Amino acid sequence: MKIQRYKHDNDISWTLGATLTIELLKCRPKQISRVFFNSRLEQSDSIENLITLCNQHNIPIEPNDKIFNILSPKGNCYVIAEFRKYTGKLSDTSHIVLVNPSDMGNLGTILRTAVGFGIQNVAVIRPGVDCFDPKAIRASMGALFHVEIEYFDSIKSYCAKFPNHLRYAFMLSKSAKSLTDNKFQEPCSLIFGNEASGLPGEYADFCKPVIIKHSSNIDSLNLSMAVGIAIFEYTRNNW
Amino acid sequence: MKIQRYKHDNDISWTLGATLTIELLKCRPKQISRVFFNSRLEQSDSIENLITLCNQHNIPIEPNDKIFNILSPKGNCYVIAEFRKYTGKLSDTSHIVLVNPSDMGNLGTILRTAVGFGIQNVAVIRPGVDCFDPKAIRASMGALFHVEIEYFDSIKSYCAKFPNHLRYAFMLSKSAKSLTDNKFQEPCSLIFGNEASGLPGEYADFCKPVIIKHSSNIDSLNLSMAVGIAIFEYTRNNW
Repeated sequence: MKIQRYKHDNDISWTLGATLTIELLKCRPKQISRVFFNSRLEQSDSIENLITLCNQHNIPIEPNDKIFNILSPKGNCYVIAEFRKYTGKLSDTSHIVLVNPSDMGNLGTILRTAVGFGIQNVAVIRPGVDCFDPKAIRASMGALFHVEIEYFDSIKSYCAKFPNHLRYAFMLSKSAKSLTDNKFQEPCSLIFGNEASGLPGEYADFCKPVIIKHSSNIDSLNLSMAVGIAIFEYTRNNW
Repeated sequence: MKIQRYKHDNDISWTLGATLTIELLKCRPKQISRVFFNSRLEQSDSIENLITLCNQHNIPIEPNDKIFNILSPKGNCYVIAEFRKYTGKLSDTSHIVLVNPSDMGNLGTILRTAVGFGIQNVAVIRPGVDCFDPKAIRASMGALFHVEIEYFDSIKSYCAKFPNHLRYAFMLSKSAKSLTDNKFQEPCSLIFGNEASGLPGEYADFCKPVIIKHSSNIDSLNLSMAVGIAIFEYTRNNW
Protein backbone atom coordinates (compact mmCIF):
# COMPACT_ATOMS: atom_id res chain seq x y z
CA MET A 1 0.00 0.00 0.00
CA LYS A 2 1.30 3.42 -0.94
CA ILE A 3 1.92 5.80 1.94
CA GLN A 4 0.81 9.37 1.38
CA ARG A 5 0.86 12.47 3.52
CA TYR A 6 -1.99 12.78 6.01
CA LYS A 7 -5.30 13.84 4.57
CA HIS A 8 -8.37 14.80 6.55
CA ASP A 9 -10.63 12.74 4.28
CA ASN A 10 -8.68 9.50 4.63
CA ASP A 11 -9.76 6.82 7.07
CA ILE A 12 -6.30 6.37 8.49
CA SER A 13 -3.86 8.47 10.45
CA TRP A 14 -0.49 8.06 12.14
CA THR A 15 1.18 8.58 15.47
CA LEU A 16 4.59 10.11 14.85
CA GLY A 17 6.85 8.96 17.67
CA ALA A 18 7.28 6.24 20.27
CA THR A 19 5.48 8.00 23.14
CA LEU A 20 2.38 8.68 21.07
CA THR A 21 2.42 5.13 19.70
CA ILE A 22 2.58 3.66 23.19
CA GLU A 23 -0.43 5.73 24.29
CA LEU A 24 -2.33 4.49 21.25
CA LEU A 25 -1.33 0.89 22.02
CA LYS A 26 -2.51 1.30 25.62
CA CYS A 27 -5.87 2.91 24.77
CA ARG A 28 -6.95 1.84 21.29
CA PRO A 29 -4.91 -1.21 20.21
CA LYS A 30 -7.69 -2.54 17.97
CA GLN A 31 -7.48 0.52 15.74
CA ILE A 32 -3.84 -0.12 14.82
CA SER A 33 -3.09 -1.79 11.50
CA ARG A 34 0.72 -1.77 11.72
CA VAL A 35 3.70 -0.24 13.44
CA PHE A 36 6.83 0.90 11.63
CA PHE A 37 10.27 1.54 13.02
CA ASN A 38 13.20 3.38 11.53
CA SER A 39 16.54 1.63 11.01
CA ARG A 40 18.19 4.38 13.09
CA LEU A 41 16.12 3.34 16.11
CA GLU A 42 18.35 2.18 18.92
CA GLN A 43 17.63 -0.68 21.27
CA SER A 44 16.15 0.55 24.55
CA ASP A 45 13.69 -0.42 27.26
CA SER A 46 10.92 1.63 25.75
CA ILE A 47 11.39 -0.17 22.44
CA GLU A 48 11.23 -3.55 24.13
CA ASN A 49 8.01 -2.38 25.73
CA LEU A 50 6.69 -1.36 22.33
CA ILE A 51 7.49 -4.70 20.74
CA THR A 52 5.92 -6.57 23.65
CA LEU A 53 2.72 -4.52 23.35
CA CYS A 54 2.55 -5.10 19.58
CA ASN A 55 3.01 -8.83 20.02
CA GLN A 56 0.31 -8.98 22.69
CA HIS A 57 -2.16 -7.45 20.27
CA ASN A 58 -0.93 -9.30 17.17
CA ILE A 59 0.02 -6.05 15.50
CA PRO A 60 2.65 -6.38 12.77
CA ILE A 61 5.79 -4.34 13.49
CA GLU A 62 8.22 -3.83 10.63
CA PRO A 63 11.20 -1.74 9.54
CA ASN A 64 10.42 0.92 6.91
CA ASP A 65 12.54 4.04 6.50
CA LYS A 66 10.55 5.41 3.60
CA ILE A 67 7.43 6.21 5.60
CA PHE A 68 9.51 8.38 7.94
CA ASN A 69 10.73 10.46 5.01
CA ILE A 70 7.14 11.02 3.90
CA LEU A 71 5.41 11.60 7.22
CA SER A 72 8.18 13.08 9.35
CA PRO A 73 10.75 14.57 6.98
CA LYS A 74 12.45 16.56 9.74
CA GLY A 75 13.59 13.33 11.39
CA ASN A 76 13.69 12.86 15.15
CA CYS A 77 10.90 10.28 14.92
CA TYR A 78 11.73 6.58 14.90
CA VAL A 79 8.38 4.86 15.48
CA ILE A 80 5.09 5.35 13.63
CA ALA A 81 1.79 3.52 14.08
CA GLU A 82 -0.80 3.49 11.34
CA PHE A 83 -4.35 3.38 12.71
CA ARG A 84 -7.94 3.53 11.54
CA LYS A 85 -9.74 6.64 12.75
CA TYR A 86 -12.74 6.03 14.99
CA THR A 87 -15.80 7.92 16.13
CA GLY A 88 -16.00 8.88 19.78
CA LYS A 89 -19.26 8.67 21.74
CA LEU A 90 -19.82 10.99 24.67
CA SER A 91 -21.12 9.51 27.90
CA ASP A 92 -23.60 11.17 30.24
CA THR A 93 -20.91 12.69 32.48
CA SER A 94 -19.67 16.27 32.17
CA HIS A 95 -18.23 17.50 28.88
CA ILE A 96 -15.95 20.12 27.43
CA VAL A 97 -17.59 21.65 24.35
CA LEU A 98 -15.36 23.44 21.83
CA VAL A 99 -17.25 25.58 19.34
CA ASN A 100 -15.30 25.92 16.06
CA PRO A 101 -11.77 25.47 17.42
CA SER A 102 -9.31 26.37 14.67
CA ASP A 103 -5.86 25.62 16.07
CA MET A 104 -4.53 22.08 16.33
CA GLY A 105 -1.99 23.02 18.96
CA ASN A 106 -4.75 24.41 21.17
CA LEU A 107 -6.93 21.33 20.67
CA GLY A 108 -4.04 19.04 21.60
CA THR A 109 -3.13 21.05 24.70
CA ILE A 110 -6.78 21.11 25.77
CA LEU A 111 -7.06 17.32 25.45
CA ARG A 112 -3.86 16.83 27.43
CA THR A 113 -5.13 19.06 30.23
CA ALA A 114 -8.61 17.52 30.17
CA VAL A 115 -7.18 14.02 30.61
CA GLY A 116 -4.86 15.37 33.28
CA PHE A 117 -7.83 16.50 35.36
CA GLY A 118 -10.05 13.51 34.57
CA ILE A 119 -12.37 14.94 31.91
CA GLN A 120 -12.74 12.32 29.21
CA ASN A 121 -15.57 13.66 27.06
CA VAL A 122 -15.03 16.44 24.56
CA ALA A 123 -17.54 17.70 21.98
CA VAL A 124 -16.39 19.66 18.94
CA ILE A 125 -18.95 21.78 17.09
CA ARG A 126 -18.15 21.95 13.36
CA PRO A 127 -16.39 23.57 11.65
CA GLY A 128 -13.52 22.57 13.91
CA VAL A 129 -10.00 21.23 13.51
CA ASP A 130 -9.44 17.56 12.82
CA CYS A 131 -8.42 15.82 16.05
CA PHE A 132 -6.75 13.00 14.09
CA ASP A 133 -4.31 15.25 12.29
CA PRO A 134 -0.86 14.05 13.38
CA LYS A 135 -0.11 17.60 14.60
CA ALA A 136 -3.09 17.56 16.96
CA ILE A 137 -2.11 14.08 18.19
CA ARG A 138 1.40 15.35 18.89
CA ALA A 139 0.19 18.47 20.72
CA SER A 140 -1.96 16.22 22.92
CA MET A 141 1.09 14.06 23.77
CA GLY A 142 -1.17 11.08 23.08
CA ALA A 143 -3.85 12.17 25.58
CA LEU A 144 -6.21 12.20 22.59
CA PHE A 145 -6.57 8.44 22.76
CA HIS A 146 -7.83 8.60 26.34
CA VAL A 147 -10.71 10.91 25.37
CA GLU A 148 -14.06 10.36 23.67
CA ILE A 149 -14.28 13.13 21.06
CA GLU A 150 -17.60 13.54 19.30
CA TYR A 151 -18.20 16.02 16.47
CA PHE A 152 -21.57 17.76 16.05
CA ASP A 153 -22.84 19.80 13.12
CA SER A 154 -24.28 22.49 15.37
CA ILE A 155 -24.63 23.44 19.02
CA LYS A 156 -28.31 22.74 18.58
CA SER A 157 -27.72 19.10 17.74
CA TYR A 158 -25.35 18.83 20.70
CA CYS A 159 -27.96 20.32 23.07
CA ALA A 160 -30.68 18.05 21.65
CA LYS A 161 -28.57 15.00 22.46
CA PHE A 162 -27.75 16.15 26.01
CA PRO A 163 -30.81 18.16 27.12
CA ASN A 164 -30.18 17.60 30.82
CA HIS A 165 -26.64 18.92 30.92
CA LEU A 166 -26.27 22.28 32.63
CA ARG A 167 -24.57 24.54 30.11
CA TYR A 168 -21.87 27.00 31.19
CA ALA A 169 -20.71 29.29 28.39
CA PHE A 170 -17.36 31.01 28.89
CA MET A 171 -17.95 34.47 27.47
CA LEU A 172 -18.15 38.17 28.12
CA SER A 173 -21.68 39.01 29.23
CA LYS A 174 -23.21 41.42 31.70
CA SER A 175 -24.81 38.54 33.57
CA ALA A 176 -21.64 36.40 33.61
CA LYS A 177 -20.65 34.88 36.93
CA SER A 178 -16.99 34.78 37.88
CA LEU A 179 -15.46 31.31 37.51
CA THR A 180 -14.29 31.39 41.11
CA ASP A 181 -17.82 32.15 42.42
CA ASN A 182 -19.67 29.76 40.17
CA LYS A 183 -21.11 26.58 41.69
CA PHE A 184 -21.10 23.95 38.98
CA GLN A 185 -23.96 21.49 38.90
CA GLU A 186 -23.50 18.08 37.29
CA PRO A 187 -23.59 16.75 34.69
CA CYS A 188 -22.59 19.89 32.85
CA SER A 189 -21.10 21.24 29.65
CA LEU A 190 -18.26 23.77 29.79
CA ILE A 191 -18.56 25.60 26.48
CA PHE A 192 -15.81 27.65 24.78
CA GLY A 193 -15.77 29.63 21.53
CA ASN A 194 -13.34 30.03 18.68
CA GLU A 195 -9.83 31.46 19.27
CA ALA A 196 -10.48 34.70 17.40
CA SER A 197 -14.19 35.32 17.86
CA GLY A 198 -15.23 33.67 21.14
CA LEU A 199 -18.85 32.66 21.65
CA PRO A 200 -21.67 34.63 19.99
CA GLY A 201 -23.85 36.67 22.37
CA GLU A 202 -26.89 34.43 21.87
CA TYR A 203 -25.23 31.67 23.89
CA ALA A 204 -26.34 33.66 26.95
CA ASP A 205 -29.94 32.73 26.01
CA PHE A 206 -29.48 29.01 26.57
CA CYS A 207 -26.39 28.83 28.81
CA LYS A 208 -25.22 30.33 32.09
CA PRO A 209 -22.43 32.77 31.17
CA VAL A 210 -19.20 32.38 33.12
CA ILE A 211 -16.15 34.63 32.96
CA ILE A 212 -12.52 34.18 33.97
CA LYS A 213 -11.80 37.65 35.30
CA HIS A 214 -8.50 39.18 34.28
CA SER A 215 -6.69 42.48 33.85
CA SER A 216 -7.57 44.81 30.96
CA ASN A 217 -3.90 44.74 29.95
CA ILE A 218 -4.69 41.69 27.83
CA ASP A 219 -7.54 41.26 25.39
CA SER A 220 -8.22 37.67 26.37
CA LEU A 221 -6.53 34.54 27.61
CA ASN A 222 -5.25 32.03 25.08
CA LEU A 223 -8.06 29.52 24.37
CA SER A 224 -6.24 26.47 25.71
CA MET A 225 -5.28 28.43 28.83
CA ALA A 226 -8.89 29.48 29.44
CA VAL A 227 -10.12 25.90 29.03
CA GLY A 228 -7.32 24.53 31.21
CA ILE A 229 -8.02 26.99 34.03
CA ALA A 230 -11.75 26.26 33.84
CA ILE A 231 -11.13 22.51 34.04
CA PHE A 232 -8.72 22.97 36.93
CA GLU A 233 -11.28 24.99 38.84
CA TYR A 234 -14.16 22.66 37.99
CA THR A 235 -12.24 19.59 39.18
CA ARG A 236 -10.29 21.22 42.03
CA ASN A 237 -11.81 19.05 44.75
CA ASN A 238 -11.18 15.77 42.93
CA TRP A 239 -7.39 15.72 43.26
CA MET B 1 20.56 50.77 7.25
CA LYS B 2 20.43 47.23 6.00
CA ILE B 3 17.63 45.10 7.45
CA GLN B 4 18.59 41.55 8.32
CA ARG B 5 16.70 38.65 9.84
CA TYR B 6 16.40 38.69 13.63
CA LYS B 7 19.50 37.66 15.51
CA HIS B 8 19.71 37.02 19.22
CA ASP B 9 22.98 38.96 19.48
CA ASN B 10 21.70 42.13 17.84
CA ASP B 11 20.52 45.06 19.93
CA ILE B 12 17.33 45.47 17.96
CA SER B 13 14.19 43.45 17.39
CA TRP B 14 10.84 43.87 15.66
CA THR B 15 7.15 43.58 16.39
CA LEU B 16 5.51 41.86 13.43
CA GLY B 17 1.95 43.16 13.21
CA ALA B 18 -0.25 46.09 14.18
CA THR B 19 -1.54 44.69 17.49
CA LEU B 20 1.96 43.96 18.78
CA THR B 21 3.19 47.35 17.60
CA ILE B 22 0.39 49.15 19.43
CA GLU B 23 1.23 47.30 22.68
CA LEU B 24 4.86 48.35 22.26
CA LEU B 25 3.80 51.96 21.60
CA LYS B 26 1.63 51.93 24.72
CA CYS B 27 4.24 50.41 27.03
CA ARG B 28 7.72 51.22 25.71
CA PRO B 29 7.51 54.05 23.16
CA LYS B 30 11.03 55.29 23.92
CA GLN B 31 12.52 52.02 22.70
CA ILE B 32 11.11 52.40 19.20
CA SER B 33 13.37 53.74 16.46
CA ARG B 34 10.91 53.58 13.55
CA VAL B 35 7.66 52.05 12.36
CA PHE B 36 7.17 50.62 8.87
CA PHE B 37 3.97 49.95 7.02
CA ASN B 38 3.31 47.86 3.95
CA SER B 39 1.80 49.40 0.82
CA ARG B 40 -0.99 46.79 1.00
CA LEU B 41 -2.10 48.19 4.34
CA GLU B 42 -5.62 49.54 4.13
CA GLN B 43 -6.92 52.63 5.85
CA SER B 44 -8.72 51.79 9.11
CA ASP B 45 -9.34 53.11 12.60
CA SER B 46 -6.57 51.04 14.09
CA ILE B 47 -4.12 52.49 11.57
CA GLU B 48 -5.21 56.02 12.39
CA ASN B 49 -4.62 55.16 16.03
CA LEU B 50 -1.15 53.86 15.16
CA ILE B 51 -0.20 57.01 13.26
CA THR B 52 -1.48 59.22 16.09
CA LEU B 53 0.57 57.30 18.64
CA CYS B 54 3.71 57.53 16.47
CA ASN B 55 3.25 61.27 16.03
CA GLN B 56 2.76 61.78 19.76
CA HIS B 57 6.10 60.13 20.43
CA ASN B 58 7.94 61.62 17.44
CA ILE B 59 8.53 58.20 15.98
CA PRO B 60 9.12 58.16 12.22
CA ILE B 61 6.59 56.06 10.34
CA GLU B 62 7.37 55.16 6.75
CA PRO B 63 6.35 52.85 3.90
CA ASN B 64 8.78 50.00 3.20
CA ASP B 65 7.68 46.77 1.55
CA LYS B 66 11.14 45.22 1.53
CA ILE B 67 11.36 44.74 5.30
CA PHE B 68 8.13 42.71 5.22
CA ASN B 69 9.65 40.33 2.69
CA ILE B 70 12.66 39.81 4.93
CA LEU B 71 11.03 39.64 8.37
CA SER B 72 7.60 38.24 7.55
CA PRO B 73 7.87 36.43 4.22
CA LYS B 74 4.55 34.62 4.70
CA GLY B 75 2.70 37.93 4.50
CA ASN B 76 -0.34 38.74 6.62
CA CYS B 77 1.64 41.42 8.46
CA TYR B 78 1.35 45.06 7.44
CA VAL B 79 2.99 46.96 10.30
CA ILE B 80 6.42 46.46 11.87
CA ALA B 81 8.13 48.46 14.60
CA GLU B 82 11.88 48.36 15.04
CA PHE B 83 12.93 48.75 18.66
CA ARG B 84 16.01 48.67 20.85
CA LYS B 85 16.00 45.76 23.26
CA TYR B 86 16.04 46.69 26.94
CA THR B 87 16.90 45.08 30.23
CA GLY B 88 14.07 44.46 32.66
CA LYS B 89 14.50 45.01 36.41
CA LEU B 90 12.40 42.99 38.83
CA SER B 91 10.68 44.83 41.64
CA ASP B 92 10.26 43.50 45.17
CA THR B 93 6.78 42.08 44.53
CA SER B 94 6.12 38.43 43.69
CA HIS B 95 7.79 36.83 40.67
CA ILE B 96 7.44 33.99 38.24
CA VAL B 97 10.81 32.25 37.82
CA LEU B 98 11.37 30.14 34.71
CA VAL B 99 14.40 27.87 34.92
CA ASN B 100 15.81 27.14 31.44
CA PRO B 101 12.63 27.56 29.40
CA SER B 102 13.27 26.29 25.87
CA ASP B 103 10.11 27.01 23.92
CA MET B 104 9.27 30.49 22.67
CA GLY B 105 5.58 29.69 22.33
CA ASN B 106 5.45 28.65 25.98
CA LEU B 107 7.30 31.77 27.13
CA GLY B 108 4.91 33.99 25.17
CA THR B 109 1.81 32.23 26.50
CA ILE B 110 3.16 32.45 30.05
CA LEU B 111 3.77 36.20 29.72
CA ARG B 112 0.27 36.73 28.33
CA THR B 113 -1.28 34.82 31.22
CA ALA B 114 0.93 36.51 33.81
CA VAL B 115 -0.11 39.97 32.62
CA GLY B 116 -3.71 38.76 32.49
CA PHE B 117 -3.60 37.98 36.20
CA GLY B 118 -1.49 40.96 37.21
CA ILE B 119 1.96 39.41 37.60
CA GLN B 120 4.45 41.78 36.03
CA ASN B 121 7.80 40.37 37.12
CA VAL B 122 9.34 37.34 35.44
CA ALA B 123 12.84 35.97 36.00
CA VAL B 124 14.47 33.68 33.45
CA ILE B 125 17.38 31.52 34.56
CA ARG B 126 19.85 30.96 31.72
CA PRO B 127 20.08 29.12 29.44
CA GLY B 128 16.61 30.19 28.40
CA VAL B 129 14.87 31.33 25.27
CA ASP B 130 15.24 34.90 24.07
CA CYS B 131 12.13 36.88 25.03
CA PHE B 132 12.82 39.42 22.29
CA ASP B 133 12.68 36.91 19.47
CA PRO B 134 9.77 38.05 17.26
CA LYS B 135 8.19 34.60 17.73
CA ALA B 136 8.11 35.00 21.50
CA ILE B 137 6.70 38.51 21.14
CA ARG B 138 3.97 37.18 18.88
CA ALA B 139 3.09 34.30 21.22
CA SER B 140 2.74 36.83 24.05
CA MET B 141 0.33 38.91 21.92
CA GLY B 142 2.39 41.90 23.03
CA ALA B 143 1.95 41.19 26.77
CA LEU B 144 5.76 40.98 26.86
CA PHE B 145 6.03 44.76 26.90
CA HIS B 146 3.93 44.98 30.07
CA VAL B 147 6.34 42.74 31.99
CA GLU B 148 9.74 43.26 33.58
CA ILE B 149 11.81 40.29 32.45
CA GLU B 150 15.20 39.85 34.06
CA TYR B 151 17.70 37.15 33.07
CA PHE B 152 19.99 35.53 35.65
CA ASP B 153 23.00 33.29 35.09
CA SER B 154 21.95 30.90 37.83
CA ILE B 155 19.22 30.30 40.37
CA LYS B 156 21.85 31.11 42.99
CA SER B 157 22.31 34.64 41.68
CA TYR B 158 18.54 35.08 41.54
CA CYS B 159 18.17 33.93 45.17
CA ALA B 160 21.06 36.17 46.26
CA LYS B 161 19.28 39.20 44.81
CA PHE B 162 15.91 38.34 46.40
CA PRO B 163 16.80 36.60 49.67
CA ASN B 164 13.49 37.45 51.35
CA HIS B 165 11.21 36.00 48.71
CA LEU B 166 9.47 32.79 49.74
CA ARG B 167 10.33 30.24 47.10
CA TYR B 168 7.74 27.77 45.83
CA ALA B 169 9.14 25.18 43.42
CA PHE B 170 6.64 23.38 41.22
CA MET B 171 7.98 19.83 41.17
CA LEU B 172 7.41 16.22 42.06
CA SER B 173 8.61 15.64 45.58
CA LYS B 174 7.47 13.54 48.52
CA SER B 175 7.09 16.64 50.64
CA ALA B 176 5.22 18.63 47.98
CA LYS B 177 2.07 20.40 49.03
CA SER B 178 -0.89 20.44 46.69
CA LEU B 179 -1.37 23.80 44.93
CA THR B 180 -4.95 23.99 46.18
CA ASP B 181 -3.87 23.50 49.83
CA ASN B 182 -0.86 25.77 49.73
CA LYS B 183 -1.02 29.13 51.50
CA PHE B 184 1.23 31.48 49.61
CA GLN B 185 3.15 34.08 51.60
CA GLU B 186 4.28 37.29 49.96
CA PRO B 187 6.46 38.38 48.35
CA CYS B 188 7.18 35.04 46.75
CA SER B 189 8.75 33.33 43.76
CA LEU B 190 6.79 30.70 41.82
CA ILE B 191 9.52 28.57 40.23
CA PHE B 192 9.11 26.25 37.23
CA GLY B 193 11.57 23.99 35.42
CA ASN B 194 12.35 23.21 31.82
CA GLU B 195 9.68 21.69 29.52
CA ALA B 196 11.41 18.32 29.21
CA SER B 197 13.27 17.91 32.48
CA GLY B 198 11.36 19.90 35.12
CA LEU B 199 13.21 21.11 38.23
CA PRO B 200 16.15 19.13 39.64
CA GLY B 201 15.49 17.41 42.99
CA GLU B 202 17.83 19.74 44.90
CA TYR B 203 15.35 22.59 44.54
CA ALA B 204 13.49 20.96 47.42
CA ASP B 205 16.46 21.94 49.65
CA PHE B 206 15.94 25.69 49.28
CA CYS B 207 12.28 25.93 48.15
CA LYS B 208 8.89 24.70 49.33
CA PRO B 209 7.83 22.07 46.79
CA VAL B 210 4.33 22.49 45.36
CA ILE B 211 2.51 20.10 43.06
CA ILE B 212 -0.47 20.48 40.74
CA LYS B 213 -2.13 17.12 41.29
CA HIS B 214 -3.39 15.35 38.18
CA SER B 215 -4.30 11.95 36.81
CA SER B 216 -1.58 9.42 36.00
CA ASN B 217 -3.00 9.21 32.47
CA ILE B 218 -0.69 12.08 31.52
CA ASP B 219 2.99 12.41 32.29
CA SER B 220 2.79 16.09 33.09
CA LEU B 221 0.94 19.25 32.19
CA ASN B 222 2.29 21.45 29.43
CA LEU B 223 4.67 24.01 31.01
CA SER B 224 2.64 27.08 30.08
CA MET B 225 -0.51 25.38 31.36
CA ALA B 226 1.14 24.56 34.69
CA VAL B 227 2.38 28.13 35.10
CA GLY B 228 -0.99 29.56 34.05
CA ILE B 229 -2.91 27.42 36.53
CA ALA B 230 -0.47 28.31 39.31
CA ILE B 231 -0.83 32.03 38.60
CA PHE B 232 -4.62 31.73 38.46
CA GLU B 233 -4.68 30.00 41.83
CA TYR B 234 -2.15 32.37 43.40
CA THR B 235 -4.10 35.46 42.31
CA ARG B 236 -7.63 34.00 42.62
CA ASN B 237 -8.77 36.49 45.26
CA ASN B 238 -7.56 39.54 43.35
CA TRP B 239 -10.12 39.46 40.54
